[in-house]
Amino acid sequence: MTECTFINDLQTPCLVLDHNKVQKNAERMLAMSKQYGVDLRPHFKTTKCVEAAILQTGGSKRGMVVSTLAEAQLLYQNGFDDILLGVPLSMSKMKRCADLTEYMERFCVMVDSQEMADFISNSRKKFPLKNGKKWNVFLKVDCENGRCGVFHNSDSSLDVARTLSKSSNVNFCGLYAHCGDSYHQPGVEAIHKVATKTTQYLVAFKNKIEAAGIECKTYGIGSTPTCSQPCDAMRQLTEWHPGNYILYDQMQKNIGSCSSDDIAVQVITRVIGHYPDSKTPHMIIDCGFTALSLHGKGDCCGMTSGSGYGCIVGHPELKLVGMSQEHGVVVPSNDNASLDFNCYPLDTLLRILPDHSCATCAMHPVFYVADEEGRIIDQWTPIRGW
Amino acid sequence: MTECTFINDLQTPCLVLDHNKVQKNAERMLAMSKQYGVDLRPHFKTTKCVEAAILQTGGSKRGMVVSTLAEAQLLYQNGFDDILLGVPLSMSKMKRCADLTEYMERFCVMVDSQEMADFISNSRKKFPLKNGKKWNVFLKVDCENGRCGVFHNSDSSLDVARTLSKSSNVNFCGLYAHCGDSYHQPGVEAIHKVATKTTQYLVAFKNKIEAAGIECKTYGIGSTPTCSQPCDAMRQLTEWHPGNYILYDQMQKNIGSCSSDDIAVQVITRVIGHYPDSKTPHMIIDCGFTALSLHGKGDCCGMTSGSGYGCIVGHPELKLVGMSQEHGVVVPSNDNASLDFNCYPLDTLLRILPDHSCATCAMHPVFYVADEEGRIIDQWTPIRGW
Repeated sequence: MTECTFINDLQTPCLVLDHNKVQKNAERMLAMSKQYGVDLRPHFKTTKCVEAAILQTGGSKRGMVVSTLAEAQLLYQNGFDDILLGVPLSMSKMKRCADLTEYMERFCVMVDSQEMADFISNSRKKFPLKNGKKWNVFLKVDCENGRCGVFHNSDSSLDVARTLSKSSNVNFCGLYAHCGDSYHQPGVEAIHKVATKTTQYLVAFKNKIEAAGIECKTYGIGSTPTCSQPCDAMRQLTEWHPGNYILYDQMQKNIGSCSSDDIAVQVITRVIGHYPDSKTPHMIIDCGFTALSLHGKGDCCGMTSGSGYGCIVGHPELKLVGMSQEHGVVVPSNDNASLDFNCYPLDTLLRILPDHSCATCAMHPVFYVADEEGRIIDQWTPIRGW
Repeated sequence: MTECTFINDLQTPCLVLDHNKVQKNAERMLAMSKQYGVDLRPHFKTTKCVEAAILQTGGSKRGMVVSTLAEAQLLYQNGFDDILLGVPLSMSKMKRCADLTEYMERFCVMVDSQEMADFISNSRKKFPLKNGKKWNVFLKVDCENGRCGVFHNSDSSLDVARTLSKSSNVNFCGLYAHCGDSYHQPGVEAIHKVATKTTQYLVAFKNKIEAAGIECKTYGIGSTPTCSQPCDAMRQLTEWHPGNYILYDQMQKNIGSCSSDDIAVQVITRVIGHYPDSKTPHMIIDCGFTALSLHGKGDCCGMTSGSGYGCIVGHPELKLVGMSQEHGVVVPSNDNASLDFNCYPLDTLLRILPDHSCATCAMHPVFYVADEEGRIIDQWTPIRGW
């Protein structure tokens, strides 16, 4: 920071994190997982900032999920260990994963097919691991959540677990399921149904492979909705792995994962134009899709958030109805209301709670971190790329 | 580049530009504007890479539009001049714009209200310009295109031009209109209608202010659809300012601005999962919204592109129907067809022509530049932030 001290002094658009809320969100999830008797393996994908990962792990720097190898490399360089790449491993990423497996005490990958289980089991010649290291492998399971994973009740899924557990080149770590369908739920009761179903299927599969003589130390599910509003069934698990909770957003608020007050991220923008003579009288703000992303509008990832692109804090009378690259179009929330331009002079600062914080964070090269008084106390730099 | 030499060797996902096509797109637009007797002031917003700007200006490094001050600063640092900030100026950006006005021979800003015209005219005390410099100001005009600008046929718009032309603190540069509504058109005929209407309104307004004794040297319109398929009316202008044409994309192809073969950008991705047992059998590719953006799906900026999120090159039988952060879901284009997984083994490389190249470029920290044989010959680094 040079001259800027307060949020109001920042050049717009920009992204501001509320340090207090980030910390509270991190601590609440650590406490909740402890209360439910499970380990927390938080996901790094939302902020991709080392500072947030330290808070998420309660300072231990152990046990996280990442969405890219660039994230894993960053965490490793900052003293983290026990990292799981939370995307199915493929052949062309083996070399980089082999390097991370050698560097770290425990770098884990995830497979979800017989083909990759065979490939990794027989990879010693092509991707030799030094120092007697083995591949640490989780089996990804689809508990009818619909994206990735071997199907929980297919016989062939048991065969994949058997291949991994028998391989002298592999430490079979356990099972991992992502209940991404919890994002599509209308409220806490529906979220509990998804969590219960996913847990039941996963535990049943775990029992099946144990009955086949395969040791399964770890079996976890995760998503911010289910872990923010856990149900009793989730006590049966050994691990949770939510990610978005570190910041939350309007989508999470709308489905019941958090309150507005928990949302730790906002995009700061200013009014740069008044157009009373336009066919549709409107204001323009300097927040386009490069600052907020186009997520939201009720159709992000097939879900119905109802929050549009985000919520303009303190101005329920306004809505953001469209964005081009550097322009956002703001009109009255009530289609029959007229816009009183005098209430929003040029250069008025507005704050937007994004619909999807993971997507909004991906648009910013730097995050400004503010204290409770709006003082900028830090800048965090997320890692990009793959 | 270290070991990677060809597109097929790149880690995925990543963005690849076809150098030949970028160059051809740049040259074609330079030739077209010359043929129509107008100056080309290309927009920098799509790539934000110096290398592209050099091609866009035919090596002159003079006369561009930018969408952020960060872009202007980058171009200035690389020897460019005559740069126009193509977003309405607001008070809190005056200091940085004053600096650029002093540094460059000609840095131009844009205003579209009486309030900002007054503010900039009377800004000498608060934002003094050294070396006898004046603010170079374009008046942004809304020719019923619906986003920004003073309304073309309001009497008050003439007053704004008068204020700017009379100010001893301002060089009044001329008029600027953006026919963004050309993006919503179904084909060339409809694009011509928008271009003709916008030109007529702008020229009429120019005649009106000249009749009032105000000199107006420059008056231009621009958008990739109108400048790629120009109509005779556009010969009346002095300047065009398209941007997306440097890469084009599926949206532009669908509205008739270009052919598929002109699209100079693609996202490279690989198949990382087969899910034949899933409720909806599908493949997963390692291209999520962080690599492609969620633009498209027929609803980007209110337009109907019909291309979904993008086009999988050489595979009309496949479509990308959803993305989360690092996963893309691919199913048969024909809802009644079944997916033959054997045709797409794990690690198969796929190439996606994005729906909206400006949005896709904003997601990547580096662009790989390939020659006609797919050899990686360069890496370009776009500027981010504001």
